[in-house]
Amino acid sequence: MTTKRPVMVAVGGDSGTGKTTLVSGLYRIFGADRITNICLDDYHRLDRAGRKAARVTALNPFANDLELMADHVARLRRGETITKPTYDHSTGTFGPRETVSPREVVVIRGLFPLFTPALREAFDVRIWLDPQEELKWSWKVRRDCAQRGYSVPEVIRQLMDRRADQLAHIEPQRAHADVVVRFEAPPGYFLPGTSVEHDDAHLDVRIDLHERLPRLDLDDVLASRDRAHAPVRLVTTSAPATAGGRFTTLEIDGTVGREQARELDERVWAHLETHRHLRPEEIGSFVDGTTPRHSDPLALTQLIVAYQVIRAGVDRDRGNARSLGARRNARIEAAASLGG
Amino acid sequence: MTTKRPVMVAVGGDSGTGKTTLVSGLYRIFGADRITNICLDDYHRLDRAGRKAARVTALNPFANDLELMADHVARLRRGETITKPTYDHSTGTFGPRETVSPREVVVIRGLFPLFTPALREAFDVRIWLDPQEELKWSWKVRRDCAQRGYSVPEVIRQLMDRRADQLAHIEPQRAHADVVVRFEAPPGYFLPGTSVEHDDAHLDVRIDLHERLPRLDLDDVLASRDRAHAPVRLVTTSAPATAGGRFTTLEIDGTVGREQARELDERVWAHLETHRHLRPEEIGSFVDGTTPRHSDPLALTQLIVAYQVIRAGVDRDRGNARSLGARRNARIEAAASLGG
Repeated sequence: MTTKRPVMVAVGGDSGTGKTTLVSGLYRIFGADRITNICLDDYHRLDRAGRKAARVTALNPFANDLELMADHVARLRRGETITKPTYDHSTGTFGPRETVSPREVVVIRGLFPLFTPALREAFDVRIWLDPQEELKWSWKVRRDCAQRGYSVPEVIRQLMDRRADQLAHIEPQRAHADVVVRFEAPPGYFLPGTSVEHDDAHLDVRIDLHERLPRLDLDDVLASRDRAHAPVRLVTTSAPATAGGRFTTLEIDGTVGREQARELDERVWAHLETHRHLRPEEIGSFVDGTTPRHSDPLALTQLIVAYQVIRAGVDRDRGNARSLGARRNARIEAAASLGG
Repeated sequence: MTTKRPVMVAVGGDSGTGKTTLVSGLYRIFGADRITNICLDDYHRLDRAGRKAARVTALNPFANDLELMADHVARLRRGETITKPTYDHSTGTFGPRETVSPREVVVIRGLFPLFTPALREAFDVRIWLDPQEELKWSWKVRRDCAQRGYSVPEVIRQLMDRRADQLAHIEPQRAHADVVVRFEAPPGYFLPGTSVEHDDAHLDVRIDLHERLPRLDLDDVLASRDRAHAPVRLVTTSAPATAGGRFTTLEIDGTVGREQARELDERVWAHLETHRHLRPEEIGSFVDGTTPRHSDPLALTQLIVAYQVIRAGVDRDRGNARSLGARRNARIEAAASLGG
């Protein structure tokens, strides 16, 4: 039904944290014709030269039009078409304005999706990408040195110059997320000559899922193994991870085998049986330098995120129908939801 | 005359800025038997484990006993023997206390020599090492990765963790220096495959000399060339470099030839004719990885610093004799001074 408002998804995190890679998995699952995808860099208030003259980085909220962002996100949530600015990264300047209509899923990715209450409240699913800092730096050093001709100290200079704004303005938004995705380097990743040196296909990943989210029941998969040593583990922390509430953490080791990944994949799709037609041939693709590769931990992460997006559609419909306490009917309701 | 108080020299700057290399030139010029050399790391209040537990870096003033430092520096200035703590970098723990008597020149090097008024006032010459940040990072990355087995992101982590304290506590001390030495990477230094890639023997150096210092008259050397294009230039800034006063800047390019360096060397020693016996065969040595090498810009820097130390001895004697305005007699007085 096209009269339904879209499911609003925030994908936030510092630049170089893998936002685009994560969203590419949602494209594969939902299909490009169901997704509207907006990058908040289009809402820069100053172009590159302007930021340089004003001595602010793009990570400074004053360099971004947060009011226009919030207005547009609210309009998209109501199903309205917007006319938005565009920013061209290749030139560092603004392009012509463009008109955007919301499809079934609206993904807003960028540095500031959770910065103001107005923004946060407009989203159904709030995802934050928070890779281990050293891993992020390793990605940036490799990309900027190999592909953009920078030296290591020049890359460090950029990281240093951005660091204060990152800590002050970007990182605190993580506390407002429902899903925090943390890729981590496994042992040996930074050691030259090891089999996992710089191997981004086998990163560990920790996915924090806030208690306000619908629970993903994977007990039957996870209970079948020695839990502490299994490559996929669900950990519920007794203490709140932040003042904002409790999280359950899904820990996926980089060593997870293709078969184990498929088993978990099957189990998640079993929860979404009316959506099986969405199941893509292959998710978990990423670009390593210029080479496309596959990562099982990434595929599972994209799957968990997609599950939350689909469930948010169910919850939206429940909210519309005011059918409280209908959790056991979720699967039935799912049929009336996204792609049903 | 052994009853004279020593000339007190501060050599400050962040770790990895080349303090030890600079001081090694003073050793060659004055001789080890005339120098007392103290590293302020011995005044850490916490050992490595203690700093880790307290989550403070060595760059935090609270991790250092600044009162004891000031007391000891004042005592050394008065010619008194001190009994001081020692810190062992190889283990990160304190060693046995040691007794130190001041020789003719007392060099105090470290992170905090200019931190408090009591410390600053105890010195006759205040030198600050302030290499270009990217150059410092390049040194640290090469050393820690090649010799200590760290990865680039791990080194960046250390730099990041220290950065806040460096900016808050270390860098502001530069404003109190009389001599600021700034080594800079020449064009191409960071570019792989260039002839000057990572060539620390041919760094550019800028030496800011505060107007309160005796003037180093090099006009006859410098006037003999096309000033703007000469490899050694004296630049007097019309505006104060800091609120603290005006500086004259001696700019030495990394391309300076051996002959030009010798000419400047001759000229400086001509100002110090009664000290010619101090003139060493060779200064400007540094260690490149594990290889000893020579640098003309470094040699000239060590020479300029040594000149200021020798002149400080002259000024001390003028102060003792209360012979104000005796600048034109400086050369004669020099004979009664250090090494005369």
